[in-house]
Amino acid sequence: MRTQYHADLARLATQLVAMSLHDRTAVASATNALLNADLEQAEHTIDVCAEIDTMRDRCEKAAVGLLARQAPVASELRQVVTALHLVSDLARMATLASHIANVARRRHPGHAVPDSVRPIVARMGDAAVAIVSSAAQVLDSRDPGDAARLDQQDDVMDELHRELFTTVLGPDWTDGVTAAVDLALLGRYYERFADHAVQVGRRTIFLVTGEDPQTWLKERQSL
Amino acid sequence: MRTQYHADLARLATQLVAMSLHDRTAVASATNALLNADLEQAEHTIDVCAEIDTMRDRCEKAAVGLLARQAPVASELRQVVTALHLVSDLARMATLASHIANVARRRHPGHAVPDSVRPIVARMGDAAVAIVSSAAQVLDSRDPGDAARLDQQDDVMDELHRELFTTVLGPDWTDGVTAAVDLALLGRYYERFADHAVQVGRRTIFLVTGEDPQTWLKERQSL
Repeated sequence: MRTQYHADLARLATQLVAMSLHDRTAVASATNALLNADLEQAEHTIDVCAEIDTMRDRCEKAAVGLLARQAPVASELRQVVTALHLVSDLARMATLASHIANVARRRHPGHAVPDSVRPIVARMGDAAVAIVSSAAQVLDSRDPGDAARLDQQDDVMDELHRELFTTVLGPDWTDGVTAAVDLALLGRYYERFADHAVQVGRRTIFLVTGEDPQTWLKERQSL
Repeated sequence: MRTQYHADLARLATQLVAMSLHDRTAVASATNALLNADLEQAEHTIDVCAEIDTMRDRCEKAAVGLLARQAPVASELRQVVTALHLVSDLARMATLASHIANVARRRHPGHAVPDSVRPIVARMGDAAVAIVSSAAQVLDSRDPGDAARLDQQDDVMDELHRELFTTVLGPDWTDGVTAAVDLALLGRYYERFADHAVQVGRRTIFLVTGEDPQTWLKERQSL
């Protein structure tokens, strides 16, 4: 019974890593669809995101099943409750990737991203892939130090987000209102995607240390 | 012991209703701050939202405490797990209200909302207050029929959101790129606020019926 229990907990943890790797595929594919105005890739991305939603259902059921059958306490309860939160974050990241793909689809055969901001958007896509890759690794290693470093990767995304807004709202913007509106939303999707990856890190810190992540991070910085 | 348990479950349910009522205050106040370019009200809204975040912490701790001490099963486990999800939705609604207030603050003493779209934004604010009021009532009554009606209220918000985009992206738009970008984000915040209210309804359907809300809603429509 206990062996089954620990096998179930381990399987749940593995499923979370799998979800995060699918999120990585989704956001990389969404960015390609966006930058290349590739309708087929946009639709493929949306399919991947739908699969991630199915994974979410499966993980939630597994977590609730563990609560019902095993009535975990202490660190094992923390694992299951954290898994429930992580599943929401990882599913939301997929939805945000599908929103990015949807912008590409909506503007096809046109390009949603004008040449003037193509390099910034490409870097936002790279930053999204980098941070979700780190989140996947943190889910696997459960290293709170690595989890803390997700914050710095998020700073990169925030800086790109600011740069995008400065360009779109700047005096030299000549690409019109529709592109500006698309980019405002795209910027938000990428930024939120990274925010959820940061949340994955924070929840991992809580999972491992049992401490409030903000408090833990502050104490660590003051060392 | 069991009496205490049921009192704790009831208190958690009451706290969720309280959170939703604070969300209503927050989004009403955020909309006023936005439409009147009122800095003081914008800052007051942001304070209310910070209080809601504290309520979230308290509710999460209460829910996890119930899992640890009482190891609930069946419908009581469903109550606690649903509460964990509801807390996330209700906290997110507060964050979205604070984003709306932040747009007002950022543009102060200017107006973020040009006169041309003021009526639409005012109606989006009204729709947000209406749907969160219904969500609060559903959290209190746990009536799945009322919960299902949140979907129709969300249709109102979606229609307003489309109307806003059509205006901003239309040929007669003369209010510039900055206002267009602000409105794209504001539209998204109101729309997401309503989406989370719908989620409150769906989770209540699951809580009461134990069924998948989508399946339950479809079966109900086919009656």
